[in-house]
Amino acid sequence: MPDPSLLSLNTATVRKQWSLPDIIDGCVRHGIGRICPWRDQVAAAGLNASAQRIRDSGLALSGYCRGGMFPAPDRAARHAAIDDNRHAVDEALVLGAPCLILVVGGLPRDPDGKIASKDLAGAREMVRDGIGELLEYARTAGMPLAIEPLHPMYAADRACVNTMAHANDLCDELGAGLGIAVDVYHVWWDPNLAHEIERAGGATPSRLFAYHICDWLVPTTDLLLDRGMMGDGVIDLPLIRSWMEAAGYRGAHEVEIFSANNWWKRDPDEVLATCKARHAERS
Amino acid sequence: MPDPSLLSLNTATVRKQWSLPDIIDGCVRHGIGRICPWRDQVAAAGLNASAQRIRDSGLALSGYCRGGMFPAPDRAARHAAIDDNRHAVDEALVLGAPCLILVVGGLPRDPDGKIASKDLAGAREMVRDGIGELLEYARTAGMPLAIEPLHPMYAADRACVNTMAHANDLCDELGAGLGIAVDVYHVWWDPNLAHEIERAGGATPSRLFAYHICDWLVPTTDLLLDRGMMGDGVIDLPLIRSWMEAAGYRGAHEVEIFSANNWWKRDPDEVLATCKARHAERS
Repeated sequence: MPDPSLLSLNTATVRKQWSLPDIIDGCVRHGIGRICPWRDQVAAAGLNASAQRIRDSGLALSGYCRGGMFPAPDRAARHAAIDDNRHAVDEALVLGAPCLILVVGGLPRDPDGKIASKDLAGAREMVRDGIGELLEYARTAGMPLAIEPLHPMYAADRACVNTMAHANDLCDELGAGLGIAVDVYHVWWDPNLAHEIERAGGATPSRLFAYHICDWLVPTTDLLLDRGMMGDGVIDLPLIRSWMEAAGYRGAHEVEIFSANNWWKRDPDEVLATCKARHAERS
Repeated sequence: MPDPSLLSLNTATVRKQWSLPDIIDGCVRHGIGRICPWRDQVAAAGLNASAQRIRDSGLALSGYCRGGMFPAPDRAARHAAIDDNRHAVDEALVLGAPCLILVVGGLPRDPDGKIASKDLAGAREMVRDGIGELLEYARTAGMPLAIEPLHPMYAADRACVNTMAHANDLCDELGAGLGIAVDVYHVWWDPNLAHEIERAGGATPSRLFAYHICDWLVPTTDLLLDRGMMGDGVIDLPLIRSWMEAAGYRGAHEVEIFSANNWWKRDPDEVLATCKARHAERS
């Protein structure tokens, strides 16, 4: 059974029901000791007020969601993305987050949102260059950056880093201050997963910066908003946790569930109680 | 521009509108010289009658869809799957298909359809063993088997071989008579795609048995039934074709589109005309 004190709530899990202050209060009430907040929720509640409220609550952070989205069709737009990411680093520092999660972005888009290029290799170069540039700032600031490899079904529109191997390769290339957020939803299918977790944990220092859990439902009815609660799907969560632990990971187990038609429609107190129970019993 | 004579129609592309005899007549009418039929359509029209009609029409086959679905929770069910696959090999021979496409199956299911195990590595062993056993029969019969790596979003329910690398590894292990069907929809995101196509084409003899085209739409509204027509999505089809050609592939370009809300609702003559035009201009 996983250590209950490692449970963290990614605040997107109840974002439709509660504001960030509500979520902080809810976690305290349910004895959930860690959260990972999103930028839009922090902005809505105020950065300094949120930082103060988190400190007062005694909650620890397991990360800050999120930076990234580096590819863009022109240099000015790529610079703007880096600028915005620097602000995300600053916010993560104010909040006391252990790392900034990076969802790196997919194919570059025009200002109107239309995909501007099919050059996937080029987008991957923009991601490498963007992380490299941001990393100079983040290193100086002392904020670790965690690449989250996203499921290949998001390669075009959200993140063109789709495997742990690719993320590990970027860490090899770009060096200190960069690590990986392992989200089971995105990587559970990968036949190289055990090996790449071992590779990330075996680096000096370890690259295993975060561990996100939920479940893959069969059938999945929506590419983005139909994630399952731990135990309701097909992912062998205890097995993947055992790989993380064998690779030396001792950090949080962060529950992140986007679920338009189920968990986002439920009483958020029920959601938090279920997260706790399923973390203990099925993760 | 691709050679128009290489265009093939996977019959699923108009399966909601037309029977197999209708499709054969439609392809002749539109000057599409190749098809890849599905087992259920052949069964509905009769195996021998379909074989005769295909011969009379002058159409060539680019494959036969499909065998596979090897994992099952017990030995008897796995044997039944192999038996069914032997029938598929026999049918492919009668039809004169150049290969039998294998969609290998995901996690094992109970007879009621419920997923019976989360052991993904175990399912992959069942796939390897099942292909190995079928291959003995298929080699004797002279029918090549083509593993189709499916997109990772189908790992649980359709195919747990999700990368070209995995398919190439299986070919290395299991030997002669086994190759790969490269479907752009499933593999376009893979950062190792160019390398693994080169690896498959560089084997002796080449493992590049089939090439399927369509497009990845953004957004994609359904995991299974929202494929796009070539040119309507984000896949750089001329680039991937160039990799296939550089690896020595000279076979068919087979259009396979499952599209519940668009192409399956259109006049099938319009669909075939569009396939021809988009093959010429956007593939």
